[in-house]
Amino acid sequence: MIGTTLRVLTKSQTTIPSSSRLQQIAIFFFVQAPATHPPVMVAGGQVVDVPPPDGRLRLRVPVPPPRSFLRTARAGLRETLFPDDPFRAVAREPAGRRRALAVLRYVFPCLEWLPSYSSADLRSDLVSGLTVASLAVPQGISYARLAGLDPVVGLYSSFVPSLVYAVLGSSRDLAVGTMAVGSLLFASMLGPAASPATDPALYARLAFTATFFAGVFQAGLGVLRLGFLVDFLSHAAVVGFMGGAATVVCLQQLRGFLGLHHFTHATDIPAVLGSVFSQSAQWQWQPFVLGCCLFLFLQITRYISKRRPKLFWVSAAAPLVSVILSTVLVYLINGEKHGIQTIGSVKQGINPPSLKSLLFSSPHTWLAAKTGIITGIISLAEGSAVARSFAMAKNYHVDGNKEMIAFGAMNMAGSCTSCYLTAGPFSRSAVNRDAGCRSPASNAVMALAVLATLLFLTPLFRHTPQVALSAIIASAMLGVVDLRAAARLARVDRVDLCVCLGTFLGVVLGSIDVGLAVAVAVLVLRVLLSVARPRTTALGKIPGTAAYRRVDQYAMAEPTPGVLVLRVDAPICFANASYLRERISRWITDEEDRVVGSGAAAPLRCVVLDMGAVASIDSCGTKMVEDLKRSLDKRGLQIALANPGSEIMRKLDKSKVLQLIGDEWVFLTVAEACDYAQSNCKVGTDASQGAAAAASPDEMV
Amino acid sequence: MIGTTLRVLTKSQTTIPSSSRLQQIAIFFFVQAPATHPPVMVAGGQVVDVPPPDGRLRLRVPVPPPRSFLRTARAGLRETLFPDDPFRAVAREPAGRRRALAVLRYVFPCLEWLPSYSSADLRSDLVSGLTVASLAVPQGISYARLAGLDPVVGLYSSFVPSLVYAVLGSSRDLAVGTMAVGSLLFASMLGPAASPATDPALYARLAFTATFFAGVFQAGLGVLRLGFLVDFLSHAAVVGFMGGAATVVCLQQLRGFLGLHHFTHATDIPAVLGSVFSQSAQWQWQPFVLGCCLFLFLQITRYISKRRPKLFWVSAAAPLVSVILSTVLVYLINGEKHGIQTIGSVKQGINPPSLKSLLFSSPHTWLAAKTGIITGIISLAEGSAVARSFAMAKNYHVDGNKEMIAFGAMNMAGSCTSCYLTAGPFSRSAVNRDAGCRSPASNAVMALAVLATLLFLTPLFRHTPQVALSAIIASAMLGVVDLRAAARLARVDRVDLCVCLGTFLGVVLGSIDVGLAVAVAVLVLRVLLSVARPRTTALGKIPGTAAYRRVDQYAMAEPTPGVLVLRVDAPICFANASYLRERISRWITDEEDRVVGSGAAAPLRCVVLDMGAVASIDSCGTKMVEDLKRSLDKRGLQIALANPGSEIMRKLDKSKVLQLIGDEWVFLTVAEACDYAQSNCKVGTDASQGAAAAASPDEMV
Repeated sequence: MIGTTLRVLTKSQTTIPSSSRLQQIAIFFFVQAPATHPPVMVAGGQVVDVPPPDGRLRLRVPVPPPRSFLRTARAGLRETLFPDDPFRAVAREPAGRRRALAVLRYVFPCLEWLPSYSSADLRSDLVSGLTVASLAVPQGISYARLAGLDPVVGLYSSFVPSLVYAVLGSSRDLAVGTMAVGSLLFASMLGPAASPATDPALYARLAFTATFFAGVFQAGLGVLRLGFLVDFLSHAAVVGFMGGAATVVCLQQLRGFLGLHHFTHATDIPAVLGSVFSQSAQWQWQPFVLGCCLFLFLQITRYISKRRPKLFWVSAAAPLVSVILSTVLVYLINGEKHGIQTIGSVKQGINPPSLKSLLFSSPHTWLAAKTGIITGIISLAEGSAVARSFAMAKNYHVDGNKEMIAFGAMNMAGSCTSCYLTAGPFSRSAVNRDAGCRSPASNAVMALAVLATLLFLTPLFRHTPQVALSAIIASAMLGVVDLRAAARLARVDRVDLCVCLGTFLGVVLGSIDVGLAVAVAVLVLRVLLSVARPRTTALGKIPGTAAYRRVDQYAMAEPTPGVLVLRVDAPICFANASYLRERISRWITDEEDRVVGSGAAAPLRCVVLDMGAVASIDSCGTKMVEDLKRSLDKRGLQIALANPGSEIMRKLDKSKVLQLIGDEWVFLTVAEACDYAQSNCKVGTDASQGAAAAASPDEMV
Repeated sequence: MIGTTLRVLTKSQTTIPSSSRLQQIAIFFFVQAPATHPPVMVAGGQVVDVPPPDGRLRLRVPVPPPRSFLRTARAGLRETLFPDDPFRAVAREPAGRRRALAVLRYVFPCLEWLPSYSSADLRSDLVSGLTVASLAVPQGISYARLAGLDPVVGLYSSFVPSLVYAVLGSSRDLAVGTMAVGSLLFASMLGPAASPATDPALYARLAFTATFFAGVFQAGLGVLRLGFLVDFLSHAAVVGFMGGAATVVCLQQLRGFLGLHHFTHATDIPAVLGSVFSQSAQWQWQPFVLGCCLFLFLQITRYISKRRPKLFWVSAAAPLVSVILSTVLVYLINGEKHGIQTIGSVKQGINPPSLKSLLFSSPHTWLAAKTGIITGIISLAEGSAVARSFAMAKNYHVDGNKEMIAFGAMNMAGSCTSCYLTAGPFSRSAVNRDAGCRSPASNAVMALAVLATLLFLTPLFRHTPQVALSAIIASAMLGVVDLRAAARLARVDRVDLCVCLGTFLGVVLGSIDVGLAVAVAVLVLRVLLSVARPRTTALGKIPGTAAYRRVDQYAMAEPTPGVLVLRVDAPICFANASYLRERISRWITDEEDRVVGSGAAAPLRCVVLDMGAVASIDSCGTKMVEDLKRSLDKRGLQIALANPGSEIMRKLDKSKVLQLIGDEWVFLTVAEACDYAQSNCKVGTDASQGAAAAASPDEMV
């Protein structure tokens, strides 16, 4: 279209009879065509009776029809809690039996994949399940020891929760099991209340209780669809947190490597190193040599699998191999007599019930609940990141809130069957995926393999040296320290790097809680600051187009003489209204100085606010716009708004600020606003009319 | 311009030798003019060697030159802490004596107005200062009693702090004095630790200590330029908080009206009413009658002043008149014998020093600090709102952080001279303004008048009935309950109304702390939610223009066949990356369903993301864009970005996501992106090329 000029019609100027609700606020639209064309009416269906005085034709920015608060609130809640429209599949079915089936399929994802489960799928899941089991058995024993629990609890924890996840889980790749960081958290948070060494029974009961609370918390988040709260632990914070925890866990393994009997509960580096070096007289060389050999073996197999992804099973089977080799060695050389500690007898048999062990009225219940909540969040943060990224890679969808319910159910069930905290750790899930798993059934396969171990093989672990477990833990933890991710953060976003480093230092120098608190505080502060200090930029016209772009981004953007175009990059709300008031006033002063300094012919006459990036406005925001209008009036300047969204129009209309500014000063685009301002603004005339209505501060406080 | 088509040049496609830094990223710009015109080169200065394959000419979205982290951080800090460029006046002066003078003028605002102070100014300030003093004396005595302090402390508090403010303050209208809400907070927070009735000395020391901490906290916020933290107490929260506190204060005055001797420290309505009705046997009718008469008198004078703003002095002088009248009456009828409690003897003389009374090592120090911080924030919130709105009305500028330093200094000085918390209460400041004050000197005049009272008139208050003070407080507090503001909130923004009501109910049913906690929690949650759940909207073309606008706002906006244009209305960051990933995926699914359902000829081929409203992006955000690109590849769709800001371009470039998407898919405007996509996207061909590079989840966790 040639020389199209659009302007805005005021609500009061036209009353349009119409049937549809949207058309009540229909937009009239005319094109000022070249003289050879007749005027074209593009949309709407009606011609304005009186053409506007400047002869230009106008497009109105509509004030949306009023909506009831309840409807707005419902829409907002829906968008907040159900952004992924999880019940789409259910809603599609006609009511009755088919819908009931859809609901069942929604609640039990296994009903989704079971009907089409083929023998090829079973073969793949058998292979991957057994591979993961060969990793799960030694890891389970190791992590249980890290958590200060009986090694057999680690095996229990790979059995029941995996079965629950096979039924309720919707990720095809996640492998369920205990996590090193969760285990460390259990030991460091529950240890001070009940020592695993002197009162193992109370400690175990506390651990089961904490697991129960973690499950309730996770399921609660999922049911209330508050899973997004977990997103506030950003990737950067998780990288720093995991790195810090892994560093601490690695250092703690010096206990096993040096054959020490006593050790600190604290998790900060100074305390751990202090504990190691204060016992230098008790250091043993035999476990150290054995441990180093095993660690080297594990690292080499990990390297091989990394270089040749096809040989994934080399590193997956390595922990089991190293357990077997070291057990045989210790048995043959009678290692216990040479200072090599062994696990000792491991109970045989299936998970005993532990429902009655849960402590709900002990003085430590609150501690257990706190431990459960913190470990629950951490395991959700890791688990949902793993499930999501694997789903993304295979192009299927995982409902984060449903995953949380599955995690919660498996921890609640686990806490009643002598299991402690389980999640979907990354390392195990990666092995599961590399081994070609096709459905959560691989978890069931793993569970059965662990069951067989529990029933028949536990006596074989009697002579397994503890240092073998330490080597397995240390080797796994080295993989968790994600230096590549930290390097990427350093490259892309240095604030994220600060978050990551802060969390890391908080964990290794303070405690796990301190690290978490640092992370959450920095991240929340970052969000609040981004809202409290939005960017305001001056815009200029890109020559030859109707586009106005940031002057600091496009060197060629030309300022419009006599008009200052400003753009606000955030919702205008209580947190930034005062700031914006001052900042915009400073922009204007600077611009006036510049105009005077450059001796330009056109003094500043109009300020155009590009509202395109203002997503919302609250009552403080409308007050800010009102104050701005009054203060510009006093300076003899006109204000114009360009491209406000419907929420902005509604609020400005309701607060009567729209009427104060005048509907004719609200435009569809910045270009129109500038054109209109240049031809209609006279210095210190119409603009100063509004000055009479001075701000009444009585309305402020 | 006719048919102007702009596209984007990649950084790798051209290397531009140039002197200026900005020109290194210069934008090339060509217009595809009609056949009759030769090609026009609009800006930049260089022609691209090889014309792009589609024959169209291109405008690049520049990747800004790298900036050091320190420079970015410095600029960010400057914008965060010095948004109003407070040292502008200092920086303008040449170094040396003139600059030193400017610094002095900056630190002591009185040096700014004193040189041009005229005798007319002095006359105005004398009148207003004396008017305010006539209000300050009875209010000071009343509020001190409300705070549980000796009445004379209220007079002290109108003396020293006012002098300090006259030197350091920059608001011309603010009148310094004690606040009712602050006094209530003191009584309710410090009362439980030391009863004003049984241990008034300890209580007074606690109050001075709390005042000192309030001053340190206020000055600290100002010096560190963290005044914006106060903005997080939004107007809505302040209205609710003040309303709740005023309600409680009014109810507490029943004690004076009914002549009760004992009363509860609690501030919730049930406790206050319970305390009143449990003592119904002790109710006295004499003070009740007197109180009601005085209350009625005060309300009538308030009504007169409201109707006739010129008669402002009627309501300003009314408290003093009612004190005088009731004192004379009680003296004449010997009221003490008829059950009317009087103030009793009030010490004569100037403020005694109280530096040595401050408690820094008592078990209650922490309580005093907490009280100081909470009351400090509340008084700042009221004081800065008053100063700002009065300044706005008279069109001068108040530096919020400097005001905080002035408040802090006056409270620190006050705490050493037997004063308790002072601020700039609205009612007193309004009287000051109405009386025609011209500078902070009116505070000095008031201080001198109070000094005269302290030296000569205190014995006259001996027979002043306490119920007169109760009537003054109750009458003042009725004005603080701002129903009009609440009604405005209900009209403009119902979420703000909820904040207001929540704070109000928290104060009147729980306690002051509960109300504050409710307010801050709701407000922070609101900001976090607005970032965690940004709006995404589909855009359509406004016919006849190049503008793309929201389909839900403009009924006439036409979707582009085969292209889905989405707009994200918030920074893309850790808090919303997962949400956006799912929400955009749902938009695409919905659009595909719609296309299939409507049987349209053009299947979806391209998704254009309008990044115009995306103010920033962090490492999680770039990862989200990367994931989106890969997932669209798998669906056979192309992704295009329109109008990204320079921060976005920098981050996308550094994270290599720009290279993954391809620079040629980044456009200056949505219109260009749509045009290009329509002519260059083939279903399932070039788009699916990228699918080989599948997401590697190893990089996620």
